[in-house]
Amino acid sequence: MLESIKMELQCPMPKFDFDMITLGHGSGGTLTSQLLESGALKLLQNDLLDQKHDGAIFNLSGKVAMSTDTFVVTPVFFPGGNIGDLAVNGTINDLAMCGATAKYLSLAFVLEEGLTMKEFWQILLSIKSACELAGVQVVTGDTKVVERGKGDKIFINTTGIGPVLTKTNIAIQQVVPGDKIILSGPLARHGIAVMSLRQGLQFETTITSDTRPLNGIVSALLNEFGEQVHLLRDPTRGGLATVLNEIARDTKLGIDVVQKSIPVEEEVYGACEMLGLDPLYVANEGLFVAIVDKNIGDDFLKKLQEWEHGEMSAIIGEVVDAHPKQVLMQSSIGGRRVVNMLAGEQLPRIC
Amino acid sequence: MLESIKMELQCPMPKFDFDMITLGHGSGGTLTSQLLESGALKLLQNDLLDQKHDGAIFNLSGKVAMSTDTFVVTPVFFPGGNIGDLAVNGTINDLAMCGATAKYLSLAFVLEEGLTMKEFWQILLSIKSACELAGVQVVTGDTKVVERGKGDKIFINTTGIGPVLTKTNIAIQQVVPGDKIILSGPLARHGIAVMSLRQGLQFETTITSDTRPLNGIVSALLNEFGEQVHLLRDPTRGGLATVLNEIARDTKLGIDVVQKSIPVEEEVYGACEMLGLDPLYVANEGLFVAIVDKNIGDDFLKKLQEWEHGEMSAIIGEVVDAHPKQVLMQSSIGGRRVVNMLAGEQLPRIC
Repeated sequence: MLESIKMELQCPMPKFDFDMITLGHGSGGTLTSQLLESGALKLLQNDLLDQKHDGAIFNLSGKVAMSTDTFVVTPVFFPGGNIGDLAVNGTINDLAMCGATAKYLSLAFVLEEGLTMKEFWQILLSIKSACELAGVQVVTGDTKVVERGKGDKIFINTTGIGPVLTKTNIAIQQVVPGDKIILSGPLARHGIAVMSLRQGLQFETTITSDTRPLNGIVSALLNEFGEQVHLLRDPTRGGLATVLNEIARDTKLGIDVVQKSIPVEEEVYGACEMLGLDPLYVANEGLFVAIVDKNIGDDFLKKLQEWEHGEMSAIIGEVVDAHPKQVLMQSSIGGRRVVNMLAGEQLPRIC
Repeated sequence: MLESIKMELQCPMPKFDFDMITLGHGSGGTLTSQLLESGALKLLQNDLLDQKHDGAIFNLSGKVAMSTDTFVVTPVFFPGGNIGDLAVNGTINDLAMCGATAKYLSLAFVLEEGLTMKEFWQILLSIKSACELAGVQVVTGDTKVVERGKGDKIFINTTGIGPVLTKTNIAIQQVVPGDKIILSGPLARHGIAVMSLRQGLQFETTITSDTRPLNGIVSALLNEFGEQVHLLRDPTRGGLATVLNEIARDTKLGIDVVQKSIPVEEEVYGACEMLGLDPLYVANEGLFVAIVDKNIGDDFLKKLQEWEHGEMSAIIGEVVDAHPKQVLMQSSIGGRRVVNMLAGEQLPRIC
């Protein structure tokens, strides 16, 4: 928060000819040019972006990962972040889940006619802050404008590329029975932060999104534990329940989790109850699930708990031979129940 | 056209539970999973996409180019193509303009609730055909769904990466006075094909979009002429006039073009007159402008004219020391006039 305030002071909004985005800003002509030259290109300036070609040219060698995500979250600004930092962190984290460190990002906007320049500038500032925090560069981009009522303020696509850390082998085939399942922090903050702002919901909370880059902590863990880390996944859309089901489906193994081990903050739990939502299905943006060799479970957890956002991380269960393709949860009151993948839609446009 | 009909016969639409896209298809849960498993993932199947991770992992070495583009064209289907092949070709061509051969693509959809499965399937088939024609693979993707009235059927982002051809040095700094300016074919087909379908325009034409991959011909030309090719640009949004102005602005040199050398088909010219459009500002999707050393101008043109779409290619002008940052055109009736960059908006959502 402090970081973004500081950034805003250093980067006052340039004087644009218009107060809001017009169709002309998507024409590819002079208005597009002005918007980019005084706006995004200047703010996100780096040598590669400065090439101002149809693409960026750089050197890469060896094993790399590439990931893409379009962000359509509504509202665009929410407690703890906005669509700008969310879009940067989201792709950085998808790469981290591949064992890769994001290095270069592309950035593509679909702007709705009428988006105010002030809002666009705030989003650009968040993009800049998020890139600096995570050590990535925006190297190429695109801006399109659609008529009022044919979009929703702003959609952002980020696509990232970066080298895969050596001595890692993160793949679904690495998962074996006995592996420990570790969750890096408390569930459901992002989804609840966004829902708290959605039209029609009047309750007030102090819950903020958990959007943050995970590349730093993931690199540190992979450097220490190497191939003993078998799989990483971030429980975004569909939540923890969906990610665990995907792992069970794709490994054809069973998954056992213990409800009381799964960290959920009290205030988040209360908000979920009020909204009739199960935190297992609510989206997160700064969490990951690690499936690790059973012999390193405790050491991995210890290291994770030393991380500034890892205090509540926990071993929440394990991979088993029994009940293949199924996720079973031992509930707090003693019984065991099947946890299914999210069916239908719970929280549209959460990311 | 034959190609895509053949493809459709080989790939009948799978049976989906719904006739159209619902919000649940964007949830990240079971509906998303079904849509992808039976749809895009199956159709576009390849080893990298099959990793089904948060990203794709592959090897790259040396100098590569990366480019991104979001496509918001309306209508989604137009004479000669649809948003699917346009999105694949567009990014392939941006990479070709960097002297690179597209190898891997990411593919990200923003679908509007209510898009029919039949339309989505047709678009996926075009994506597959375009990828096969150009020899590229979709290796990772994303699907989001927005409510009715918050999007417009479908927006597609493609981001591509591929190796830069050796022995090339395409950069704005390479352009020098005396260089020849070559256009690869006749102007304005894409823009006019789309406009012919837009609401309220009743005239009928047989003009089809020129959307096509340029990687093959560009590779052949670069392999033959190497560093004597100084710059490549594709005149999409903003048209030829905008691209020439960008080159003049960024090189701080002048550009002279001769109107009667610029190829425009008669039917396209007629349609432009009827619509009050100047073909110099109309978007193209299968053309490029090459700025080449003056000594190879004729040989470059000869090679280009042997290409199946290059029959009408022509030397349209040259780079000059005089009138820096300005594009001057010798008109068909004798005088010279300044050609400016596109101001405002001429054809919204053309790509």
